[in-house]
Amino acid sequence: MAHVLRIDSSPRAARSHTRRLTGMFVEMWLRQHPADAVSHRDVGLQPLPPVSESWIAAAFHPAAERTAEMRAALSLSDELVDELLLADLLVLGVPMYNFGIPAQLKAYIDQIVRIGRTFAFEPHDTAQPYKPLTHGKRAVVIVSSGDAGYGPGECLARFNHVEPYLRTVLEYIGIRQIDFAYAGYDEFGGERLQRSLTAALARINRLALQNSSPLARTA
Amino acid sequence: MAHVLRIDSSPRAARSHTRRLTGMFVEMWLRQHPADAVSHRDVGLQPLPPVSESWIAAAFHPAAERTAEMRAALSLSDELVDELLLADLLVLGVPMYNFGIPAQLKAYIDQIVRIGRTFAFEPHDTAQPYKPLTHGKRAVVIVSSGDAGYGPGECLARFNHVEPYLRTVLEYIGIRQIDFAYAGYDEFGGERLQRSLTAALARINRLALQNSSPLARTA
Repeated sequence: MAHVLRIDSSPRAARSHTRRLTGMFVEMWLRQHPADAVSHRDVGLQPLPPVSESWIAAAFHPAAERTAEMRAALSLSDELVDELLLADLLVLGVPMYNFGIPAQLKAYIDQIVRIGRTFAFEPHDTAQPYKPLTHGKRAVVIVSSGDAGYGPGECLARFNHVEPYLRTVLEYIGIRQIDFAYAGYDEFGGERLQRSLTAALARINRLALQNSSPLARTA
Repeated sequence: MAHVLRIDSSPRAARSHTRRLTGMFVEMWLRQHPADAVSHRDVGLQPLPPVSESWIAAAFHPAAERTAEMRAALSLSDELVDELLLADLLVLGVPMYNFGIPAQLKAYIDQIVRIGRTFAFEPHDTAQPYKPLTHGKRAVVIVSSGDAGYGPGECLARFNHVEPYLRTVLEYIGIRQIDFAYAGYDEFGGERLQRSLTAALARINRLALQNSSPLARTA
Protein backbone atom coordinates (compact mmCIF):
# COMPACT_ATOMS: atom_id res chain seq x y z
CA MET A 1 0.00 0.00 0.00
CA ALA A 2 1.25 3.44 -0.89
CA HIS A 3 0.31 6.80 0.51
CA VAL A 4 -0.84 9.64 -1.74
CA LEU A 5 -0.71 13.24 -0.54
CA ARG A 6 -2.88 15.60 -2.55
CA ILE A 7 -1.94 19.26 -2.08
CA ASP A 8 -4.19 21.96 -3.51
CA SER A 9 -3.04 25.56 -3.58
CA SER A 10 -5.76 27.39 -5.48
CA PRO A 11 -7.80 29.88 -3.45
CA ARG A 12 -10.70 29.06 -5.76
CA ALA A 13 -13.15 26.37 -4.73
CA ALA A 14 -15.48 25.06 -7.47
CA ARG A 15 -13.96 27.34 -10.13
CA SER A 16 -10.45 25.91 -9.67
CA HIS A 17 -9.21 23.84 -12.60
CA THR A 18 -6.25 22.50 -10.66
CA ARG A 19 -8.37 21.35 -7.72
CA ARG A 20 -10.72 19.50 -10.07
CA LEU A 21 -7.77 17.93 -11.91
CA THR A 22 -5.92 16.82 -8.76
CA GLY A 23 -9.21 15.25 -7.64
CA MET A 24 -9.53 13.42 -10.95
CA PHE A 25 -5.93 12.23 -10.82
CA VAL A 26 -6.54 10.77 -7.36
CA GLU A 27 -9.72 9.09 -8.60
CA MET A 28 -7.86 7.52 -11.55
CA TRP A 29 -5.02 6.49 -9.26
CA LEU A 30 -7.34 4.82 -6.76
CA ARG A 31 -8.96 2.86 -9.56
CA GLN A 32 -5.53 1.28 -10.16
CA HIS A 33 -4.59 1.10 -6.48
CA PRO A 34 -7.76 0.77 -4.43
CA ALA A 35 -5.84 -0.06 -1.25
CA ASP A 36 -3.78 3.13 -1.29
CA ALA A 37 -4.34 5.81 1.34
CA VAL A 38 -4.97 9.43 0.37
CA SER A 39 -4.42 12.53 2.49
CA HIS A 40 -5.55 15.95 1.40
CA ARG A 41 -3.83 19.21 2.33
CA ASP A 42 -5.59 22.29 1.03
CA VAL A 43 -3.30 25.29 1.41
CA GLY A 44 -5.39 27.26 -1.07
CA LEU A 45 -8.59 27.31 0.95
CA GLN A 46 -6.82 27.06 4.33
CA PRO A 47 -3.72 29.23 3.84
CA LEU A 48 -0.75 28.55 6.11
CA PRO A 49 1.11 31.30 7.92
CA PRO A 50 4.44 32.29 6.38
CA VAL A 51 7.50 31.38 8.43
CA SER A 52 8.25 33.92 11.17
CA GLU A 53 11.37 35.05 13.00
CA SER A 54 10.66 32.64 15.87
CA TRP A 55 10.09 29.80 13.36
CA ILE A 56 13.50 30.42 11.80
CA ALA A 57 15.26 30.68 15.16
CA ALA A 58 13.62 27.44 16.34
CA ALA A 59 14.29 25.50 13.12
CA PHE A 60 18.00 26.36 13.18
CA HIS A 61 18.33 25.57 16.89
CA PRO A 62 19.49 22.00 17.74
CA ALA A 63 16.33 19.88 18.03
CA ALA A 64 17.31 18.36 21.39
CA GLU A 65 17.77 21.78 22.98
CA ARG A 66 14.57 23.50 21.86
CA THR A 67 12.45 25.25 24.47
CA ALA A 68 8.70 24.64 24.71
CA GLU A 69 8.18 27.95 22.93
CA MET A 70 10.48 26.90 20.09
CA ARG A 71 8.68 23.56 19.75
CA ALA A 72 5.38 25.44 19.59
CA ALA A 73 6.73 27.69 16.80
CA LEU A 74 7.46 24.55 14.76
CA SER A 75 4.43 22.42 15.62
CA LEU A 76 2.49 23.15 12.43
CA SER A 77 5.63 22.67 10.37
CA ASP A 78 6.27 19.34 12.13
CA GLU A 79 2.76 18.20 11.31
CA LEU A 80 3.23 19.15 7.65
CA VAL A 81 6.63 17.46 7.47
CA ASP A 82 5.26 14.27 9.12
CA GLU A 83 2.49 14.21 6.53
CA LEU A 84 4.95 14.72 3.69
CA LEU A 85 7.37 12.06 4.91
CA LEU A 86 4.53 9.55 5.06
CA ALA A 87 3.64 10.11 1.40
CA ASP A 88 5.01 8.11 -1.53
CA LEU A 89 3.30 10.22 -4.16
CA LEU A 90 2.58 13.96 -4.05
CA VAL A 91 -0.13 15.36 -6.29
CA LEU A 92 0.15 19.13 -6.43
CA GLY A 93 -2.44 21.50 -7.88
CA VAL A 94 -0.74 24.78 -8.80
CA PRO A 95 -2.46 27.73 -10.47
CA MET A 96 0.25 29.89 -12.05
CA TYR A 97 -0.06 33.39 -10.60
CA ASN A 98 2.03 36.07 -12.24
CA PHE A 99 4.40 33.46 -13.73
CA GLY A 100 5.12 31.79 -10.39
CA ILE A 101 3.54 29.61 -7.75
CA PRO A 102 0.86 31.19 -5.53
CA ALA A 103 1.97 32.71 -2.22
CA GLN A 104 -0.05 30.00 -0.50
CA LEU A 105 2.12 27.25 -2.00
CA LYS A 106 5.33 29.11 -1.20
CA ALA A 107 4.17 29.34 2.43
CA TYR A 108 3.72 25.54 2.38
CA ILE A 109 7.17 24.98 0.85
CA ASP A 110 8.82 27.25 3.41
CA GLN A 111 7.11 25.18 6.13
CA ILE A 112 8.23 21.75 4.81
CA VAL A 113 11.79 22.49 3.72
CA ARG A 114 13.17 21.86 7.20
CA ILE A 115 16.77 21.49 8.29
CA GLY A 116 17.32 18.09 9.91
CA ARG A 117 13.97 16.77 8.67
CA THR A 118 13.78 17.13 4.88
CA PHE A 119 17.35 18.30 4.23
CA ALA A 120 20.63 18.15 6.13
CA PHE A 121 23.13 20.98 6.42
CA GLU A 122 26.76 19.91 6.91
CA PRO A 123 28.90 23.05 6.65
CA HIS A 124 32.15 21.05 6.98
CA ASP A 125 31.36 19.31 3.67
CA THR A 126 32.31 22.30 1.56
CA ALA A 127 31.62 20.53 -1.76
CA GLN A 128 28.02 19.64 -0.89
CA PRO A 129 26.89 21.01 2.48
CA TYR A 130 23.19 20.38 1.76
CA LYS A 131 21.82 16.83 1.50
CA PRO A 132 18.27 15.67 0.77
CA LEU A 133 16.59 13.64 3.50
CA THR A 134 13.61 12.24 1.57
CA HIS A 135 13.99 9.30 -0.78
CA GLY A 136 11.94 7.45 -3.39
CA LYS A 137 9.04 9.85 -3.58
CA ARG A 138 7.29 10.82 -6.80
CA ALA A 139 5.48 14.09 -7.56
CA VAL A 140 2.82 14.90 -10.13
CA VAL A 141 2.29 18.64 -10.57
CA ILE A 142 -0.82 19.96 -12.30
CA VAL A 143 -0.45 23.57 -13.42
CA SER A 144 -3.12 25.86 -14.82
CA SER A 145 -2.54 29.29 -16.29
CA GLY A 146 -4.50 32.25 -17.64
CA ASP A 147 -2.98 31.95 -21.08
CA ALA A 148 -0.97 29.03 -22.47
CA GLY A 149 2.33 28.02 -24.01
CA TYR A 150 4.40 27.51 -20.85
CA GLY A 151 5.30 23.88 -21.55
CA PRO A 152 8.86 22.83 -22.49
CA GLY A 153 9.75 24.27 -25.90
CA GLU A 154 6.58 26.37 -26.13
CA CYS A 155 6.48 30.10 -26.83
CA LEU A 156 6.18 31.29 -23.20
CA ALA A 157 8.44 28.61 -21.68
CA ARG A 158 10.99 31.22 -20.58
CA PHE A 159 8.33 32.91 -18.45
CA ASN A 160 7.43 29.68 -16.69
CA HIS A 161 8.81 30.10 -13.18
CA VAL A 162 6.62 27.33 -11.77
CA GLU A 163 8.29 24.23 -13.22
CA PRO A 164 11.97 25.23 -12.87
CA TYR A 165 11.33 26.43 -9.33
CA LEU A 166 9.42 23.37 -8.17
CA ARG A 167 12.01 21.05 -9.75
CA THR A 168 14.78 22.86 -7.86
CA VAL A 169 13.12 22.89 -4.47
CA LEU A 170 11.61 19.38 -4.65
CA GLU A 171 14.92 17.90 -5.83
CA TYR A 172 16.62 19.75 -2.98
CA ILE A 173 14.68 17.66 -0.45
CA GLY A 174 15.15 14.49 -2.54
CA ILE A 175 12.12 14.29 -4.86
CA ARG A 176 13.53 13.56 -8.29
CA GLN A 177 10.71 11.86 -10.18
CA ILE A 178 8.51 14.82 -11.08
CA ASP A 179 5.96 15.01 -13.89
CA PHE A 180 4.07 18.12 -14.96
CA ALA A 181 0.69 18.48 -16.65
CA TYR A 182 -0.51 21.83 -18.01
CA ALA A 183 -3.96 23.33 -18.57
CA GLY A 184 -4.21 26.82 -20.05
CA TYR A 185 -6.43 29.62 -21.36
CA ASP A 186 -8.41 30.20 -18.15
CA GLU A 187 -8.53 33.95 -18.92
CA PHE A 188 -9.57 33.38 -22.53
CA GLY A 189 -12.17 30.69 -21.88
CA GLY A 190 -14.21 29.13 -24.69
CA GLU A 191 -13.15 26.27 -26.88
CA ARG A 192 -9.40 26.79 -26.34
CA LEU A 193 -9.86 26.32 -22.60
CA GLN A 194 -11.96 23.20 -23.15
CA ARG A 195 -9.42 21.70 -25.56
CA SER A 196 -6.63 22.46 -23.11
CA LEU A 197 -8.51 20.84 -20.20
CA THR A 198 -9.18 17.75 -22.34
CA ALA A 199 -5.49 17.47 -23.21
CA ALA A 200 -4.52 17.95 -19.56
CA LEU A 201 -6.91 15.20 -18.54
CA ALA A 202 -5.43 12.78 -21.08
CA ARG A 203 -1.94 13.57 -19.78
CA ILE A 204 -3.08 13.10 -16.17
CA ASN A 205 -4.65 9.80 -17.09
CA ARG A 206 -1.35 8.62 -18.58
CA LEU A 207 0.52 9.78 -15.48
CA ALA A 208 -1.95 7.92 -13.23
CA LEU A 209 -1.33 4.72 -15.20
CA GLN A 210 2.46 5.01 -14.85
CA ASN A 211 4.02 3.08 -11.98
CA SER A 212 0.93 0.93 -11.85
CA SER A 213 2.60 -1.26 -9.25
CA PRO A 214 2.36 0.31 -5.81
CA LEU A 215 5.35 2.48 -5.02
CA ALA A 216 7.85 1.11 -2.57
CA ARG A 217 7.23 2.40 0.94
CA THR A 218 10.04 4.63 2.00
CA ALA A 219 9.04 5.05 5.67
CA MET B 1 11.35 65.37 -6.16
CA ALA B 2 11.11 61.64 -6.58
CA HIS B 3 9.30 59.09 -4.48
CA VAL B 4 11.10 56.06 -3.04
CA LEU B 5 9.14 52.99 -1.95
CA ARG B 6 11.07 50.70 0.37
CA ILE B 7 9.59 47.22 0.58
CA ASP B 8 10.93 44.79 3.18
CA SER B 9 9.91 41.14 3.06
CA SER B 10 11.99 39.50 5.78
CA PRO B 11 10.06 38.17 8.77
CA ARG B 12 13.15 38.93 10.84
CA ALA B 13 13.39 42.27 12.59
CA ALA B 14 16.84 43.25 13.91
CA ARG B 15 18.48 40.05 12.62
CA SER B 16 17.46 40.74 9.00
CA HIS B 17 20.36 41.60 6.69
CA THR B 18 18.05 42.75 3.90
CA ARG B 19 16.09 45.11 6.15
CA ARG B 20 19.31 46.69 7.41
CA LEU B 21 20.62 47.01 3.84
CA THR B 22 17.43 48.53 2.39
CA GLY B 23 17.55 51.01 5.27
CA MET B 24 21.16 51.86 4.44
CA PHE B 25 20.37 52.24 0.75
CA VAL B 26 17.59 54.70 1.57
CA GLU B 27 19.94 56.63 3.87
CA MET B 28 22.58 56.86 1.13
CA TRP B 29 19.93 57.85 -1.41
CA LEU B 30 18.55 60.62 0.79
CA ARG B 31 22.03 62.01 1.26
CA GLN B 32 22.06 62.58 -2.54
CA HIS B 33 18.38 63.58 -2.78
CA PRO B 34 17.35 65.13 0.51
CA ALA B 35 14.02 66.36 -0.92
CA ASP B 36 12.84 62.91 -1.99
CA ALA B 37 9.93 61.26 -0.21
CA VAL B 38 10.20 57.75 1.20
CA SER B 39 7.38 55.29 1.93
CA HIS B 40 7.96 52.06 3.75
CA ARG B 41 5.92 48.89 3.20
CA ASP B 42 6.93 46.03 5.45
CA VAL B 43 5.32 42.83 4.19
CA GLY B 44 7.77 40.75 6.23
CA LEU B 45 6.67 41.97 9.65
CA GLN B 46 3.09 42.74 8.54
CA PRO B 47 2.29 39.89 6.13
CA LEU B 48 -0.45 40.52 3.57
CA PRO B 49 -3.23 38.04 2.92
CA PRO B 50 -2.83 35.95 -0.25
CA VAL B 51 -5.36 36.70 -2.99
CA SER B 52 -8.69 34.93 -2.47
CA GLU B 53 -11.43 33.68 -4.76
CA SER B 54 -13.43 36.89 -4.21
CA TRP B 55 -10.31 38.98 -4.92
CA ILE B 56 -9.83 37.22 -8.27
CA ALA B 57 -13.49 37.51 -9.22
CA ALA B 58 -13.50 41.23 -8.35
CA ALA B 59 -10.21 42.01 -10.11
CA PHE B 60 -11.39 40.41 -13.37
CA HIS B 61 -14.81 42.11 -13.19
CA PRO B 62 -15.10 45.44 -15.10
CA ALA B 63 -14.12 48.19 -12.64
CA ALA B 64 -17.20 50.32 -13.34
CA GLU B 65 -19.55 47.45 -12.55
CA ARG B 66 -18.05 46.24 -9.27
CA THR B 67 -20.37 45.80 -6.31
CA ALA B 68 -19.52 47.24 -2.90
CA GLU B 69 -18.43 43.76 -1.82
CA MET B 70 -16.10 43.48 -4.83
CA ARG B 71 -14.61 46.89 -4.11
CA ALA B 72 -14.03 45.81 -0.52
CA ALA B 73 -12.24 42.64 -1.70
CA LEU B 74 -9.81 44.86 -3.63
CA SER B 75 -9.39 47.75 -1.19
CA LEU B 76 -6.06 46.60 0.23
CA SER B 77 -4.81 45.80 -3.27
CA ASP B 78 -5.90 49.26 -4.45
CA GLU B 79 -4.00 50.87 -1.60
CA LEU B 80 -0.87 48.87 -2.48
CA VAL B 81 -1.19 49.66 -6.19
CA ASP B 82 -1.69 53.39 -5.47
CA GLU B 83 1.45 53.35 -3.35
CA LEU B 84 3.40 51.53 -6.09
CA LEU B 85 2.21 53.85 -8.88
CA LEU B 86 3.33 56.85 -6.84
CA ALA B 87 6.88 55.51 -6.54
CA ASP B 88 9.73 56.26 -8.93
CA LEU B 89 12.19 53.95 -7.25
CA LEU B 90 11.45 50.65 -5.51
CA VAL B 91 13.95 49.29 -3.00
CA LEU B 92 13.18 45.66 -2.26
CA GLY B 93 14.69 43.62 0.56
CA VAL B 94 14.41 39.94 -0.30
CA PRO B 95 15.78 37.09 1.80
CA MET B 96 16.11 34.05 -0.46
CA TYR B 97 14.06 31.24 1.08
CA ASN B 98 14.50 27.82 -0.45
CA PHE B 99 15.86 29.33 -3.69
CA GLY B 100 12.88 31.65 -4.20
CA ILE B 101 11.28 34.78 -2.81
CA PRO B 102 9.53 34.48 0.57
CA ALA B 103 5.79 33.73 0.55
CA GLN B 104 5.27 37.18 2.06
CA LEU B 105 6.74 38.87 -1.02
CA LYS B 106 4.76 36.65 -3.40
CA ALA B 107 1.60 37.68 -1.56
CA TYR B 108 2.58 41.33 -2.18
CA ILE B 109 3.27 40.68 -5.88
CA ASP B 110 -0.04 38.90 -6.33
CA GLN B 111 -1.73 41.97 -4.76
CA ILE B 112 -0.02 44.57 -7.00
CA VAL B 113 -0.06 42.79 -10.38
CA ARG B 114 -3.55 44.06 -11.18
CA ILE B 115 -5.40 43.90 -14.47
CA GLY B 116 -6.33 47.40 -15.63
CA ARG B 117 -4.03 49.02 -13.08
CA THR B 118 -0.48 47.70 -13.51
CA PHE B 119 -1.02 45.63 -16.69
CA ALA B 120 -3.63 45.59 -19.45
CA PHE B 121 -5.16 42.46 -20.96
CA GLU B 122 -6.30 42.81 -24.57
CA PRO B 123 -7.30 39.31 -25.77
CA HIS B 124 -7.97 40.56 -29.32
CA ASP B 125 -4.27 41.46 -29.68
CA THR B 126 -3.17 37.86 -30.16
CA ALA B 127 0.51 38.77 -30.63
CA GLN B 128 0.80 40.64 -27.32
CA PRO B 129 -2.41 40.53 -25.24
CA TYR B 130 -0.64 41.75 -22.06
CA LYS B 131 0.73 45.28 -21.80
CA PRO B 132 2.57 46.94 -18.92
CA LEU B 133 0.87 49.96 -17.38
CA THR B 134 3.74 51.39 -15.33
CA HIS B 135 6.51 53.41 -16.93
CA GLY B 136 9.88 54.86 -16.03
CA LYS B 137 10.27 53.19 -12.65
CA ARG B 138 13.54 51.78 -11.35
CA ALA B 139 14.00 48.91 -8.88
CA VAL B 140 16.92 48.03 -6.64
CA VAL B 141 16.65 44.52 -5.19
CA ILE B 142 18.78 43.50 -2.22
CA VAL B 143 18.96 39.73 -1.79
CA SER B 144 20.45 37.78 1.08
CA SER B 145 20.95 34.04 1.21
CA GLY B 146 22.07 31.33 3.62
CA ASP B 147 24.98 30.31 1.44
CA ALA B 148 26.42 32.23 -1.51
CA GLY B 149 27.24 32.03 -5.20
CA TYR B 150 23.85 32.92 -6.70
CA GLY B 151 25.09 35.93 -8.68
CA PRO B 152 25.31 35.86 -12.50
CA GLY B 153 27.98 33.36 -13.58
CA GLU B 154 28.54 32.06 -10.05
CA CYS B 155 28.40 28.39 -9.05
CA LEU B 156 24.80 28.35 -7.77
CA ALA B 157 23.38 30.77 -10.34
CA ARG B 158 21.11 28.09 -11.83
CA PHE B 159 19.43 27.67 -8.43
CA ASN B 160 18.71 31.38 -8.15
CA HIS B 161 14.95 31.65 -8.66
CA VAL B 162 14.78 35.11 -7.10
CA GLU B 163 16.41 37.25 -9.80
CA PRO B 164 14.91 35.61 -12.93
CA TYR B 165 11.49 35.59 -11.33
CA LEU B 166 11.54 39.20 -10.14
CA ARG B 167 12.88 40.37 -13.52
CA THR B 168 10.02 38.60 -15.30
CA VAL B 169 7.23 39.86 -13.07
CA LEU B 170 8.55 43.42 -12.64
CA GLU B 171 9.13 43.77 -16.40
CA TYR B 172 5.62 42.45 -16.95
CA ILE B 173 4.20 45.52 -15.22
CA GLY B 174 6.74 47.78 -16.93
CA ILE B 175 9.72 48.02 -14.57
CA ARG B 176 12.77 47.43 -16.75
CA GLN B 177 15.62 49.13 -14.92
CA ILE B 178 16.38 46.59 -12.20
CA ASP B 179 19.64 46.20 -10.27
CA PHE B 180 20.45 43.40 -7.84
CA ALA B 181 22.82 43.35 -4.88
CA TYR B 182 23.68 40.11 -3.07
CA ALA B 183 24.75 39.29 0.47
CA GLY B 184 25.43 35.67 1.37
CA TYR B 185 26.63 33.19 4.00
CA ASP B 186 23.99 33.94 6.64
CA GLU B 187 23.91 30.26 7.63
CA PHE B 188 27.71 30.01 7.78
CA GLY B 189 28.32 33.27 9.59
CA GLY B 190 31.81 34.41 10.59
CA GLU B 191 34.24 36.22 8.37
CA ARG B 192 32.69 35.08 5.09
CA LEU B 193 29.38 36.67 6.10
CA GLN B 194 31.13 39.89 7.12
CA ARG B 195 33.07 40.07 3.84
CA SER B 196 29.90 39.46 1.89
CA LEU B 197 27.99 42.17 3.76
CA THR B 198 30.84 44.61 3.14
CA ALA B 199 30.79 43.84 -0.58
CA ALA B 200 27.00 44.18 -0.68
CA LEU B 201 27.24 47.55 1.02
CA ALA B 202 29.79 48.79 -1.51
CA ARG B 203 27.51 47.66 -4.34
CA ILE B 204 24.51 49.34 -2.72
CA ASN B 205 26.50 52.51 -2.33
CA ARG B 206 27.33 52.49 -6.05
CA LEU B 207 23.66 51.85 -6.89
CA ALA B 208 22.59 54.74 -4.66
CA LEU B 209 24.97 57.06 -6.51
CA GLN B 210 23.62 56.05 -9.92
CA ASN B 211 20.95 58.29 -11.39
CA SER B 212 22.07 61.00 -9.06
CA SER B 213 19.69 63.40 -10.76
CA PRO B 214 16.17 62.91 -9.44
CA LEU B 215 14.16 60.46 -11.52
CA ALA B 216 11.49 61.89 -13.78
CA ARG B 217 8.10 61.84 -12.11
CA THR B 218 5.83 59.41 -13.97
CA ALA B 219 2.56 60.05 -12.13
